[in-house]
Amino acid sequence: MKLSQIAKIIDHTNIDPKAKAKDIKKTCKEAIKYAFRGVCVNPQWVRLAKQELKDTDIKVVVLVDPPMGQSSHSERMKICRKAKKDGADEIDIVMNIVDLKYERYDKILKDLKEICKILPTKVIIGSGYLTDEEIKKASWLVKKAGAICVKTATQKDPLEHRELEEKARHLKLMIEGAPGLLIKAAGKIRTLKDLRKMVQAGADIVGTSSGVQIMREAIKKQR
Amino acid sequence: MKLSQIAKIIDHTNIDPKAKAKDIKKTCKEAIKYAFRGVCVNPQWVRLAKQELKDTDIKVVVLVDPPMGQSSHSERMKICRKAKKDGADEIDIVMNIVDLKYERYDKILKDLKEICKILPTKVIIGSGYLTDEEIKKASWLVKKAGAICVKTATQKDPLEHRELEEKARHLKLMIEGAPGLLIKAAGKIRTLKDLRKMVQAGADIVGTSSGVQIMREAIKKQR
Repeated sequence: MKLSQIAKIIDHTNIDPKAKAKDIKKTCKEAIKYAFRGVCVNPQWVRLAKQELKDTDIKVVVLVDPPMGQSSHSERMKICRKAKKDGADEIDIVMNIVDLKYERYDKILKDLKEICKILPTKVIIGSGYLTDEEIKKASWLVKKAGAICVKTATQKDPLEHRELEEKARHLKLMIEGAPGLLIKAAGKIRTLKDLRKMVQAGADIVGTSSGVQIMREAIKKQR
Repeated sequence: MKLSQIAKIIDHTNIDPKAKAKDIKKTCKEAIKYAFRGVCVNPQWVRLAKQELKDTDIKVVVLVDPPMGQSSHSERMKICRKAKKDGADEIDIVMNIVDLKYERYDKILKDLKEICKILPTKVIIGSGYLTDEEIKKASWLVKKAGAICVKTATQKDPLEHRELEEKARHLKLMIEGAPGLLIKAAGKIRTLKDLRKMVQAGADIVGTSSGVQIMREAIKKQR
């Protein structure tokens, strides 16, 4: 893979709840330096990130409702509308994992369809919480709702201590459930090797807070 | 391990939502034949199981609020009180997994403390949903609430397609979080080898619907 190709699949991520303005600015500067695909932040940092990334084509991605998508539909809509107003280009929102476990599919679809009308949306299904059948079902719902992408996981993901092999297996199930949709892998992707493994398993986008280290590794290898 | 030792760690489990009276009777007959520790059933079958197991020391264990413990405290109390009235000897109840993820520890303790007063209680923490830190925290809460046992998982467990190695790792974290408490392993334990692996990792009780196959295997080996 070319350096520019690697950079263009990375959503450079800073969702640390303790992050301050200077940290978000740093994340944005790094994104510009390496020409990453996007910068993924919590809602309160969308406006600042947009400001820092003006005159670039780097997307401002807002993470909504981690870790399990438990806010009400109206609360989620409010957060997403505000993010759009603040300059977000994309939404990364968590599916209501409990609704999925309890098979409340109509409720999930109703919620996500409305969200997807606000901005291009990636839906986080929390694959680490799910059985194989649930991963496929969730991915299918994401596609049906009109999202652009189905994404594995975010904070508090139980897979964090397990192998990336398992995540790679999930990506394949997601593709099976939502053929044609973009696939985003996130969580514990820390090295160039990790990134390659995710791409080989079918990831189009990779969410990571280790983008800089990965690019440095890639640059070193190409020397 | 002696045959009687193996039998006495098995909660013979039939939580199939489609189970009929004749299936529950069969489960109870098997439990008597092999002298299992207990029979684990859904709430509507407690009365029948107790009737089938009268004049035995096999415990009637009721599974409450799978898969994620999302019923209200009052609803959970109602189910448990009814189960006691119907003849249950033990409660296996799921912790509210969402409350755990969102760190609402006081609410969890308040709920479980009341439940534990009704009958000896095992609390299912859904270890497959949790990070390592959360497993330890959940186990600690279970101990603090006054339960007799912390249990890994029940239906819709994401670990179902993963290795038992991971479950064994979870058992160790549970012991770390709740030293001195009984530990029950459940989910995907289908062979004598699986059972041994769980016992070696620290399980005192094993929940399985494959108790009969496991005993047959054990009997064959001892010949």
